Amino acid sequence: MILWKIHDRPIFYKPVLIEGLPGIGNVGKMTVEYLIDKLNAKKFAEVYSDNFPYHVFIDKKSVVHLPRNEFYFVKGKKRDLIFLTGDFQSMTPQGHYEITEKILEFVKNQGVKSIITVGGFGVEGIPKDPKVLGAVTHEKLIEEFKEKGVIFENGERVGMIVGASGLLLGLGKLKGMRGICLMGETFSRPMFTDARSSKAVLEVFSKYLGITLDMSDMNTKAKELDKAITKAKELEEQMMKKLTKPRDELSYIG
Amino acid sequence: MILWKIHDRPIFYKPVLIEGLPGIGNVGKMTVEYLIDKLNAKKFAEVYSDNFPYHVFIDKKSVVHLPRNEFYFVKGKKRDLIFLTGDFQSMTPQGHYEITEKILEFVKNQGVKSIITVGGFGVEGIPKDPKVLGAVTHEKLIEEFKEKGVIFENGERVGMIVGASGLLLGLGKLKGMRGICLMGETFSRPMFTDARSSKAVLEVFSKYLGITLDMSDMNTKAKELDKAITKAKELEEQMMKKLTKPRDELSYIG
Amino acid sequence: MILWKIHDRPIFYKPVLIEGLPGIGNVGKMTVEYLIDKLNAKKFAEVYSDNFPYHVFIDKKSVVHLPRNEFYFVKGKKRDLIFLTGDFQSMTPQGHYEITEKILEFVKNQGVKSIITVGGFGVEGIPKDPKVLGAVTHEKLIEEFKEKGVIFENGERVGMIVGASGLLLGLGKLKGMRGICLMGETFSRPMFTDARSSKAVLEVFSKYLGITLDMSDMNTKAKELDKAITKAKELEEQMMKKLTKPRDELSYIG
Amino acid sequence: MILWKIHDRPIFYKPVLIEGLPGIGNVGKMTVEYLIDKLNAKKFAEVYSDNFPYHVFIDKKSVVHLPRNEFYFVKGKKRDLIFLTGDFQSMTPQGHYEITEKILEFVKNQGVKSIITVGGFGVEGIPKDPKVLGAVTHEKLIEEFKEKGVIFENGERVGMIVGASGLLLGLGKLKGMRGICLMGETFSRPMFTDARSSKAVLEVFSKYLGITLDMSDMNTKAKELDKAITKAKELEEQMMKKLTKPRDELSYIG
Repeated sequence: MILWKIHDRPIFYKPVLIEGLPGIGNVGKMTVEYLIDKLNAKKFAEVYSDNFPYHVFIDKKSVVHLPRNEFYFVKGKKRDLIFLTGDFQSMTPQGHYEITEKILEFVKNQGVKSIITVGGFGVEGIPKDPKVLGAVTHEKLIEEFKEKGVIFENGERVGMIVGASGLLLGLGKLKGMRGICLMGETFSRPMFTDARSSKAVLEVFSKYLGITLDMSDMNTKAKELDKAITKAKELEEQMMKKLTKPRDELSYIG
Repeated sequence: MILWKIHDRPIFYKPVLIEGLPGIGNVGKMTVEYLIDKLNAKKFAEVYSDNFPYHVFIDKKSVVHLPRNEFYFVKGKKRDLIFLTGDFQSMTPQGHYEITEKILEFVKNQGVKSIITVGGFGVEGIPKDPKVLGAVTHEKLIEEFKEKGVIFENGERVGMIVGASGLLLGLGKLKGMRGICLMGETFSRPMFTDARSSKAVLEVFSKYLGITLDMSDMNTKAKELDKAITKAKELEEQMMKKLTKPRDELSYIG
Repeated sequence: MILWKIHDRPIFYKPVLIEGLPGIGNVGKMTVEYLIDKLNAKKFAEVYSDNFPYHVFIDKKSVVHLPRNEFYFVKGKKRDLIFLTGDFQSMTPQGHYEITEKILEFVKNQGVKSIITVGGFGVEGIPKDPKVLGAVTHEKLIEEFKEKGVIFENGERVGMIVGASGLLLGLGKLKGMRGICLMGETFSRPMFTDARSSKAVLEVFSKYLGITLDMSDMNTKAKELDKAITKAKELEEQMMKKLTKPRDELSYIG
Repeated sequence: MILWKIHDRPIFYKPVLIEGLPGIGNVGKMTVEYLIDKLNAKKFAEVYSDNFPYHVFIDKKSVVHLPRNEFYFVKGKKRDLIFLTGDFQSMTPQGHYEITEKILEFVKNQGVKSIITVGGFGVEGIPKDPKVLGAVTHEKLIEEFKEKGVIFENGERVGMIVGASGLLLGLGKLKGMRGICLMGETFSRPMFTDARSSKAVLEVFSKYLGITLDMSDMNTKAKELDKAITKAKELEEQMMKKLTKPRDELSYIG
């Protein structure tokens, strides 16, 4: 079951879909929410699915809303941008295909022919200078994004793209669309929102969109993350020490 | 698959849907069954779903019935009340969305525009004087229920409402309905039916409906619960003592 | 997905559906297959479902067939009998509801208004003289089957009937049908096919159908089961002895 | 959800469907890919399903594609051949039935009446001279394939065929098609692609198709597999030695 709530029906000029949903390092969601905020994009549609969790959120005004994905837009000179972000990705494989199909139908009707999806690519350790890896629907797109600093490794490290960022390209390609997935290298643990990785992706967007993005707050967030990771590592080491203590000290736990 | 059995087709005047299905502390189900009983409400419809368990119950007359949700009604002066209770909530996420959609369609056809859902909110320890927390579809409803003793914490402790009580509001809102979820604080363990929490919610209903409810039997049930909890705690402590005995005493088990 | 293969379209006179599918003690399947065999019933339809396992069986002629449920019939003087048995019950809850609905539609079109389902009711130990318990769709059916030796315990021990035997009655009742579930007491372990329990149910059928059934082979099977159970118990006791040996003797397994 | 991408619409003469998808020992996929390669078959269609994993692959050119099953064809003198292979089998039971139904509809429209499916049959140890076992939709097919070296064991060792190789025959039979499953004996462990088993099946195809297949590269692959298995066994033995060491040496791991 897919339900739509349409707030506004703008007319788009050569719109590009830019997707960033929750995922590893939260790189996609953070990047797209940053663009929405900085470019002052406006919400125009929401989509609901029975493959999202069966609960409502309670916000800071005690008002409830269902889990949802949201569409924002901003008008540009060379092309308009449509942003897709949200609370969740689908919780089931079938649901992933279903909602991606419906989203592609929806944006195709808005005139979308190009898609940029954003995600994280988990690496060992904390990347101090994260690279942005790319994978495309059509080989001819590679050169354009290489110029903007995207690395193409030809499937060497990244063999697949899981979830919305992958399916939007894969199913979109079947519908005659073209696109790229931008993957920021990030620390492969859950729970962290990786501002440094997101910043690396935003630098690609800055070149792609031909605009300057103020990313000072991203630097602040990146430093906060460093502290959090350092702390987590300390806790982990303490934990490991306890767990590897000789057996007899643990005998009352069994 | 959703199947309906309609017993009666009453004409309703400004009907409000009041939902209480099985859940934490059984606060919702107990509260709504209490209102059905005290207000002498009459069953007029049943709904069956393939997302309920695939068994039948055998009742005290050796007669079988499928798991179901039931609709009762009572006519009022200011407005009619429709009650929703039942044996189960859906067993799958998709089923939750499906049955909620169908129930909302059904009650919309009866003229329902307002919904009150009832649930429990699990806290540590046994609340001696449980509060009733609220979350609404529209901010303007808050004042009305604050006056009736409902606490609005703006998502501080309760961040989400899981299941029917949440989805009825979330999906109902998309259909132009408005409503509130009343959550009685309760002991966050399964198996207990918390009469004291239910009584707190009933006091809100008493003010909302402008009627006096005889709740002496609720007090009796609350005292029975206290005894049951005390007993359970003792058993638990005995169990913990056994589990934390030195290893060698356990060697034949382990 | 439900697929039908119809071999024959007999015209039925007051047909009764008698169901016995795999389940606890295999009482249902064994009983119905026995009746099919002794009454020389003829297969007239098969039903396939995507909720059965996704494999084919290879038979003794190296020929494959999909898992299926099968319909047999025999013409009678007072009424015709339709038997339902098969390889499997549905593997999912939704599948249980779907196939039961489709089967009920199918037999309703054949004129079926009465249903007898057969199952096992697991008890502790091996019942030497298993009782046959009953549960009905309508109270007025009780007297008729009490006369035939069925025990009605009013939900005391059996609180629910899981699977096809329950759903056929529960969903059938919603379609205006009436019926009974006959449950033979049986040893509550998987793997055993309980001929003695099945024999007890067959004695009810003998009275219901007004015919004499030669059950000498059932006695033979019951004795084989006794031997198998005795052997299994011995193995179990040996296993338990090993498992409860002092720790040090086990140290090389860890 | 099933999506098709049709590249070409050839007219077929008496086409036979030959299926080999991933499975035990990868016998099916390897065999069919070998035939596609050696017979220079041409891709003419692809099928996508929401029961395949929800990711895209990234290939060696950094280009993405969805998991898919693919159809190839080659024209023959006596009959045309349609090959079915792919990245995955369905991930859910329902999905298996759905995609098999759709594939059968598709090939029925191409004129297919005969189906040969290929799989592995796991045995203990590494078969040095693997047999090819068969199971058919219709008994009369047995003689034809016995002549080509296929063994029919009448369900003695193989009692069922799981997945696409089984369902294509089972569901195809319901649609009036006929066919055989060829199962190469193979080492019953995952991860290995068994060239020797595949070679045994190819020898059956060689007789069936009346052509000579150059299988020298299969011999090379079989030898590589022998080495890999020998290595894996050594590792396993080392592992077992460690795991069965006396307890006290392991005390720091717990």
